[in-house]
Amino acid sequence: DIDFHGPSIPKLLGMEGQMLTSDGTSVAPAMFGPLRVVSIDFMLGERTDAVIWRGPMKANVARQLLEDVDWGPLKYLVVDSPPGTGDEPLSMAQLIPGEAGALIVTTAQQVSTNDVARSITFCRKLDLPVLGVIENMSGMTCPHCGGFIELFGTGGGERLAAKAGVEFLGRIPFDPGVMESGEHGRPFARYDPDSNSGRAFSDIVGKLLGIIASRRSS
Amino acid sequence: DIDFHGPSIPKLLGMEGQMLTSDGTSVAPAMFGPLRVVSIDFMLGERTDAVIWRGPMKANVARQLLEDVDWGPLKYLVVDSPPGTGDEPLSMAQLIPGEAGALIVTTAQQVSTNDVARSITFCRKLDLPVLGVIENMSGMTCPHCGGFIELFGTGGGERLAAKAGVEFLGRIPFDPGVMESGEHGRPFARYDPDSNSGRAFSDIVGKLLGIIASRRSS
Repeated sequence: DIDFHGPSIPKLLGMEGQMLTSDGTSVAPAMFGPLRVVSIDFMLGERTDAVIWRGPMKANVARQLLEDVDWGPLKYLVVDSPPGTGDEPLSMAQLIPGEAGALIVTTAQQVSTNDVARSITFCRKLDLPVLGVIENMSGMTCPHCGGFIELFGTGGGERLAAKAGVEFLGRIPFDPGVMESGEHGRPFARYDPDSNSGRAFSDIVGKLLGIIASRRSS
Repeated sequence: DIDFHGPSIPKLLGMEGQMLTSDGTSVAPAMFGPLRVVSIDFMLGERTDAVIWRGPMKANVARQLLEDVDWGPLKYLVVDSPPGTGDEPLSMAQLIPGEAGALIVTTAQQVSTNDVARSITFCRKLDLPVLGVIENMSGMTCPHCGGFIELFGTGGGERLAAKAGVEFLGRIPFDPGVMESGEHGRPFARYDPDSNSGRAFSDIVGKLLGIIASRRSS
């Protein structure tokens, strides 16, 4: 979790308040089942502490999170980055050698896809392959009448992917349950896998694993 | 607009593609009615160009936007900052002397209010008064059946404000029309002022102007 100003991974995984331990030479990650998790949130004294760091400090800490944490053998390293094309993703793109790829998440409206088009340009300039685009909060079903509601429109993510020549991985419909399960630190995809949003998560992960496997074998 | 990685003000005001002009000593802002508007978007060649800047560069450009633009006499200077407590808001807080205040926008769920609590800590550490908290995307009315839908919950912004001892300015319900009008570069508050969201915008602006006026007269 390199969103230093808004580290939400611990909250989403119900791991708030955990602290990291160190043996003096390396830092042990916190565990969520088989996941090894590190977030700046684990290093703050209070939940409301602000990380008032300028860019060079963030670049240093990003490097430390990669180098000083005892990650052990990893199958996948997932980096949650803040939006934009600033120090955090830039440091990661430069620090992670070889096999890295970027997963781009957007909502459908142009105000968002314009920003994300910039992120794709960013990846290209840094030779970071784009694994694909996901359209999030892609409409919802009214819990009262079952009617379909366009929140931010639909299809903008797919149009962006086509225009940029990258893979479109799918749409995740908005579901208040996703927000709710995040509030309670329970991954939605595990707790409501058969909902529309749960199936969308699982379809997208399946495609993504396929893409990564085919890249690794080529 | 100091959201250098995601400058959306030009899109929201229908001003995309405008370029700034300079007489060699100062830069003339673009005009939207009586508003003087400056965004990094006006300086990029292509809409998809990425601003791949590390923090020190952003701090420099933030200073230039204040010092090198011919703002003329201003009644209010509104700075749209990216989320978080990084270089952009930090530079602004340090560059704008005296009268500045921060307006905090959140959605209701804890994943968001936790981040925003950190922003309030940031303001306190920098002696930047918090003008108030706004809860955005605060539920919606189903366009089909008229039922009320909790998107991210409601009340989280108010609870945050009470806990932090700052003013709560109001809730803005989600309305797909707000997104639509942004897509077309038309400020929603002007085009649909009598909708629930339009009235919420206008109530909040009224309160805010009152707070600023009373601070200026004290």
